[in-house]
Amino acid sequence: MAAQLKSASQSRSRLDRLRLFLSHHRADAILVSHLPNIHYLCGFTGSSALLLIEGSRGTLFTDSRYTFQARKEVSGVRVQITKTGLIAAASEALRSGRKGRRTAVAYSPFQLTVGQMDALHAGSGKHVRWVKAPNAVESLRAIKDAGELTAMKDAAELISNVFGSILPLIRPGVSELMLSGAIEFAMKELGATGPSFETIVASGPRSAWAHARPSSKPLRKNELVVLDQGAILRGYCSDMTRTVFLGRSSPRVRRMYAAVLEAQQAAKDAIRPGVTAGSVDAAARRVLKGYGLASKFTHSTGHGLGLEVHEMPRLGRGEATILQQGMVLTVEPGVYVEGFGGIRIEDDIVVTSKGAQDLTSASREFLEL
Amino acid sequence: MAAQLKSASQSRSRLDRLRLFLSHHRADAILVSHLPNIHYLCGFTGSSALLLIEGSRGTLFTDSRYTFQARKEVSGVRVQITKTGLIAAASEALRSGRKGRRTAVAYSPFQLTVGQMDALHAGSGKHVRWVKAPNAVESLRAIKDAGELTAMKDAAELISNVFGSILPLIRPGVSELMLSGAIEFAMKELGATGPSFETIVASGPRSAWAHARPSSKPLRKNELVVLDQGAILRGYCSDMTRTVFLGRSSPRVRRMYAAVLEAQQAAKDAIRPGVTAGSVDAAARRVLKGYGLASKFTHSTGHGLGLEVHEMPRLGRGEATILQQGMVLTVEPGVYVEGFGGIRIEDDIVVTSKGAQDLTSASREFLEL
Repeated sequence: MAAQLKSASQSRSRLDRLRLFLSHHRADAILVSHLPNIHYLCGFTGSSALLLIEGSRGTLFTDSRYTFQARKEVSGVRVQITKTGLIAAASEALRSGRKGRRTAVAYSPFQLTVGQMDALHAGSGKHVRWVKAPNAVESLRAIKDAGELTAMKDAAELISNVFGSILPLIRPGVSELMLSGAIEFAMKELGATGPSFETIVASGPRSAWAHARPSSKPLRKNELVVLDQGAILRGYCSDMTRTVFLGRSSPRVRRMYAAVLEAQQAAKDAIRPGVTAGSVDAAARRVLKGYGLASKFTHSTGHGLGLEVHEMPRLGRGEATILQQGMVLTVEPGVYVEGFGGIRIEDDIVVTSKGAQDLTSASREFLEL
Repeated sequence: MAAQLKSASQSRSRLDRLRLFLSHHRADAILVSHLPNIHYLCGFTGSSALLLIEGSRGTLFTDSRYTFQARKEVSGVRVQITKTGLIAAASEALRSGRKGRRTAVAYSPFQLTVGQMDALHAGSGKHVRWVKAPNAVESLRAIKDAGELTAMKDAAELISNVFGSILPLIRPGVSELMLSGAIEFAMKELGATGPSFETIVASGPRSAWAHARPSSKPLRKNELVVLDQGAILRGYCSDMTRTVFLGRSSPRVRRMYAAVLEAQQAAKDAIRPGVTAGSVDAAARRVLKGYGLASKFTHSTGHGLGLEVHEMPRLGRGEATILQQGMVLTVEPGVYVEGFGGIRIEDDIVVTSKGAQDLTSASREFLEL
C-alpha cells in the first residue's frame, strides 16, 4: 500500500500535535504500540513495530523483514531494525542516555499486554516512570484533515459503486459466500487495496444475526438480505450496509424498513459540532421506540471511521464524547427479529459546521429485487 | 462459518484436557480471552467474548449482537449475554458464590491488556489470585486431532487448486492487486470462507519485501513474482507460497531458486517427532549458507498453523520446542535481495511418526511463464 503521508511535513505536524498532548500530560515521551497509530504518525504500514517519541526525536523499531519497506515508507522518525525483539530494543533505548534523570513515558493501557508491560518494566528498570494515557493518538486521529477526508470520500464513493455493480448478482440461488466474494473482487477492480472488514452477506433468518459471517447458504425468494461492506482505499476505510428483499415484501417488512430508515435520518439530523455522541444514538432509538422496535435494536448507532473500521468516537447509549467538525462516523441503526430477519441501513458521514454530510451515495430506497 | 465442533463430546474432551492442565498448575479456573482459543474450546466464532472455565462448569460471556449465533454454535458451556461489558460480567461471576474462599485463576499475560487486567483486579477484588499461564490453550491446539487434520488437508488442497486455477492469469500487464483479488475470489469459488491472511502478490523489486502488500503495480516481463496465499476452510487455515518468473530467467535467479528449494527440502527432511524446532530452522539455514545466501534469509523457517495462520510452534533460530506428532507447520525459507527480487517457497506439512508429510500438493518446480 502506498504510504498515506504526503510529505515529511504532514508527519511532523502530527508528531508536533502529539508532543503538545504529552506536554499537557507532563510526559517526556510516549511509546506507541498500536499499528494504525504508528501508521498515522510516521507512515509505516508493516505488521510489527513500536514507535518511541521522545522530545524532538522519534524512533521506529521494526524487524529485518521490513528493512526495505520501512526505508521507503517512514518519514519524520528514524528507523531501527532490531534482532532482539521490539520490546527489548525499546527498553534499551529508554535505559540508555538517561544520565540519571527519570523519564515519564506515556502508554495506552489498552494497547500493551500485561506480559509486554512486565518486560518493559524489567528492561527499562528505574529509569522510567510509566504514565497511563489511553487514546493519546486516537484523539488526534478522530479529527480528519483535508487529505484524509478526500481519501475517505473516495473510499465511500468506491463502496457505493461496488454495491451498484453487484446488484444484478443478488438473486435466488447465489450463495452468501459467492456474493461476498464478488463484492470483494469488485472492490479491487475499482482500485481498493481490499475489504476493510470481512464482508457480511446474511440472508433470510441469518439476517437477524447482526454480525453473521457469509455462509454457503443460497439466497432464496422472499428473504431479506443484509449486505455490509467496506473497502480500504489509500489506507482509509469505508463501511456501508444496505438491506434488500428478494421478491415482493410484506407490509411488516416494509414497516420495519421505514422505521430503520427514519431512525437513521433522525440520527443524521441530530449530528452537528457540539452535541454528544449519546444524543445521536438517542435520536435513532426514539424513532424505533415509536415503532415498538426499540428492543430489537441491539447495537449502538455508529462509530468513528478512518485508518481503522472502528475508531473513536462510539455513537452509543449515554456516550459523553462531544462531536467535532472533521469527525467521520457511520450511522447504522438496525432491527433484528430472531427467526424472521434483520434490517440495517448504514452510511458514512463527516461532521461539518452545518451538520452531517453524507459520504456514501448509494440509494437508501427499499429495493425489492 | 459453521461451528468446528462436531459434537458436544469433542468440546468436552478439549475442556477436560484444559482442566487437567489447570490442576497441574494449581489453578482452580482459567479466564480465556483470545478468540481462537474460545472458538477451539466451545465453538463460538463471534468477535466479542470471554470464556471462564471453573471446575466442572464453563461460562461464555458475549454481548447481545451474538445472542442467536451463540445459541447455535456453543457447546459444553453455558452462555451469558452481558449488557455491562465482558470484563465486568466475568468479574461479577468471579466475585459471587466464592463463600470467602480465594480462587486461583489462570490467564495469559500476553492476551489481556494492562487496562483489562486493572479492571479485573478492581472488579474481582480479593476473591481472586491471578496466575500467569501463557499458552495453556495454545499448547493443546498445537497438536491437531483427526478431524482437524482432515480440515487442514482440505484447506491445503484447496489453496493448491486455487494456485493451479489462477496460473493463466499471471502475465505481464495484470496488477498485483487484481491478481490477489482473483486468487481470493477463486478461494471462495472453491468453498473457502475467505483468505487466512491478506494475499501477497509481490513482483519485480517488490518481491524482495518479504511481507509486501499487493499494489497497483502491473507485473512486467523478466520479473520474479512471489505469491503467498492461504484459505480458511471449516475454520482452519492453509498458507502456501510459490515464486514464478515472467520470461526466461537468468542463471543467478535459477541458482537462487534451487538454493531455496534445497533449503526447504532440508528443513522438511529434518522434521520428525522429538527434534527441536530450532534444528529444523538450522537445516534450512545451513543449505543457504552453502550458497552464500544466509544473510538474505531474513525470517524464520516456518510456524504452526491451525485455527490461526500463526500458531505454536515457531520454527525459528534456537527454538527449543520439541516437535510432536500431529503438529501442522509451514516450511518456508526465502531469500531477498534489495533492488533485485525475492524468492520464497512454502508448504504446509503435518508431523507424523515417519516425518514431515506434505499437505500442499502444488508443484514446486520453477515456473517460467
